[in-house]
Amino acid sequence: MNATPRFRTAEILAVGSELLTPFRSDTNSLFITARLNDCGVDVRAKGVVGDDPADLRAMLAHARSRAQLVVLTGGLGPTEDDVTREVVAEALGLPLEEDPALVEQLERRFASRGSRMPAINRRQARVPHGAIALANPRGTAPGLWIDQGARGVLLLPGPPREMQPMLEGFLRDVLAARTDPRRFHRLVIKIAGWTESGVEEVAQPVYTRWRDLDPPVQTTILAAPGQVELHLTVADADGARAASRLEAAAAEVSAVLHPGVFSTNGRSLEEVVGGLLRDRGLTIAVGESCTGGLITSRLTDVPGSSAYVLASVVSYGNRAKTELLDVPGEVIEAHGAVSEPVAIAMATGARARAHADVGVGVTGIAGPGGATPGKPVGTVCLAVVPPDGAPRARTRRFPGERAVVKQQASQAALELVRRVLEGEEI
Amino acid sequence: MNATPRFRTAEILAVGSELLTPFRSDTNSLFITARLNDCGVDVRAKGVVGDDPADLRAMLAHARSRAQLVVLTGGLGPTEDDVTREVVAEALGLPLEEDPALVEQLERRFASRGSRMPAINRRQARVPHGAIALANPRGTAPGLWIDQGARGVLLLPGPPREMQPMLEGFLRDVLAARTDPRRFHRLVIKIAGWTESGVEEVAQPVYTRWRDLDPPVQTTILAAPGQVELHLTVADADGARAASRLEAAAAEVSAVLHPGVFSTNGRSLEEVVGGLLRDRGLTIAVGESCTGGLITSRLTDVPGSSAYVLASVVSYGNRAKTELLDVPGEVIEAHGAVSEPVAIAMATGARARAHADVGVGVTGIAGPGGATPGKPVGTVCLAVVPPDGAPRARTRRFPGERAVVKQQASQAALELVRRVLEGEEI
Repeated sequence: MNATPRFRTAEILAVGSELLTPFRSDTNSLFITARLNDCGVDVRAKGVVGDDPADLRAMLAHARSRAQLVVLTGGLGPTEDDVTREVVAEALGLPLEEDPALVEQLERRFASRGSRMPAINRRQARVPHGAIALANPRGTAPGLWIDQGARGVLLLPGPPREMQPMLEGFLRDVLAARTDPRRFHRLVIKIAGWTESGVEEVAQPVYTRWRDLDPPVQTTILAAPGQVELHLTVADADGARAASRLEAAAAEVSAVLHPGVFSTNGRSLEEVVGGLLRDRGLTIAVGESCTGGLITSRLTDVPGSSAYVLASVVSYGNRAKTELLDVPGEVIEAHGAVSEPVAIAMATGARARAHADVGVGVTGIAGPGGATPGKPVGTVCLAVVPPDGAPRARTRRFPGERAVVKQQASQAALELVRRVLEGEEI
Repeated sequence: MNATPRFRTAEILAVGSELLTPFRSDTNSLFITARLNDCGVDVRAKGVVGDDPADLRAMLAHARSRAQLVVLTGGLGPTEDDVTREVVAEALGLPLEEDPALVEQLERRFASRGSRMPAINRRQARVPHGAIALANPRGTAPGLWIDQGARGVLLLPGPPREMQPMLEGFLRDVLAARTDPRRFHRLVIKIAGWTESGVEEVAQPVYTRWRDLDPPVQTTILAAPGQVELHLTVADADGARAASRLEAAAAEVSAVLHPGVFSTNGRSLEEVVGGLLRDRGLTIAVGESCTGGLITSRLTDVPGSSAYVLASVVSYGNRAKTELLDVPGEVIEAHGAVSEPVAIAMATGARARAHADVGVGVTGIAGPGGATPGKPVGTVCLAVVPPDGAPRARTRRFPGERAVVKQQASQAALELVRRVLEGEEI
């Protein structure tokens, strides 16, 4: 038996007055929570406090009274409004001592950039008595780890690119030995073409059963425009058992939500569609109206997409639909610009003009203006012409404001491509 | 003299276990902070806690020991994991009493939807002794206001569409009489074509002087890809004086950052460009390569943009540039696809093909692949052909990953259009 106390609970405290304005959120705590959870540590609460010594002292004292491990981010810089180091040292009754090795490191860092260390940076070499300094290869502020047996305080710099690798190192080198062998294991299921309540209704009976397993599979449902995510979590000391349990759960829920599940490995819909195109050696072209270029922008967010995205035409007006995508004027005349025949003609035109294997066409009313009788705001017609040339089309009605309609329409278009390429029902 | 104590400090506590996962942030506190600041109340700290009675009790007690006003959001629903009402009542030693008027309101709400109130909803009619219930026209959970003289606790529901109007009503009807006449007034200056440190260097001497004014103008600098924002705040009881001080400050900083300031009224760059086009009766078309449709997607995010966005072509390959945008093969041959002559030819082709007044062309290397000798990842060539037909072009080098390069390139393209249309240096 190891007698060292193990850390099971943590609180995260983000320090910085800018985080108390209406314009900025603390996002560091999401990364820190994920990584602490991975190590089997529960985050019981989070806080944000400004660069005010009295406020920080009170928040720290209260957090320490509640949780075994307190993780602070920010306020380790060299300027006078960076107070975290001094306040923590004082609150814990630890005198600050200058660490000659840190001074030398800082001086070397500045020298390697051809400059002398400003006098104010010397503060960053001060370490509370008994604390361990954590190296910061990406900045001047070292982290600090203060181990008090049953309690611990970790100080990390605020910039994410400095904080994240430092935390990784700390978890691996220090905390791993001080936590339970139990770890949190996760799997994210991404679903298109279902509403949040639809997923809830169908999947809930499935994942309610998972709660009775030992260890249980916990589920969180999250919705974004056009996409629902199920986050599955298992806390288990046995990684292989957790992984196989998560895979079985994913398979079970995929079956009841078929064919809506497009990813169980974190990939976005544009990555999944891109992967299908690349694997099959196919190219794609898009004719966009109401989505205004968003479908193509999403497809080209994926590195390497130039291998399969050939070209797209955003045809906002009818003249552009006719001249740039060869949509016959009679088809627009007969069915209206927002119609499945026009979406199909746009897909056909984009495919032919770009010499692509797959053509996509989307026309609709993003709003707030543009509604016509029988075609309210949010009406969107989507079409795909796959390599065999046989067009598939659907009409949808999306709720919400302009940007939300655009997002949902782009999602539906990519999902239509995926289902057609995979031979699923659309 | 009014003897009622005035609230000057507040803390916000978001309640909900989902807000302690790595997947969700508390965003309610940003809205609440903005509105409390508008009323002259300082938010000194924020917290997040799960649906755990013991944790919530401790967080609440500590928040009440620090701030005069504690605002809680979430946990007022009818189910058993909604514990806020009960924990707060118990912590403050106030027995819960069923309010017959609230029961009747809830029953009416369900009846108006043709259903009977489920038994569990009856919990939502319980009110701590002496508390005031706040009406919730958009949901079943009433808010609660517990006024203890020098201290106050406000309970709001978690869903933003229920919480926001309830808070507005509370501030207007209750809190306004309990705060200082001093209010926070704000103005946001948006800047393109400058780095954060560039803005800091030039503007800092200006806004350092503002700090010595009475009342002072406080400044926060925020950076996003391709955009820097200066947030100016004045706390003043005299609204007209605050407004004129903010306008004078905005004019002063606009002069030193000229012509980089594109907005001092909250509008985005695509809204500003759209406004210029609309006011002048001009139309636009875009030829996009590395931005993959993002420029057009941003232009069409603006309601009413179909009045001036005619069409765009995303030409990812050289063949598409030649066939769809009439870029001469010899120009690509002579200068490479990423070159100012090609950007100009794309702008010219998009403008001619779409019969637009203004043409835009953008070609570059978004990465991670595609770099060539002398043209590293992030190199982007931008061109605008304005109504007079005389092309203007620039080459830029943007740092960061693919999505960040796309975002910066789209921002630089829109800013180039703005400066050319306004006759500014580019």
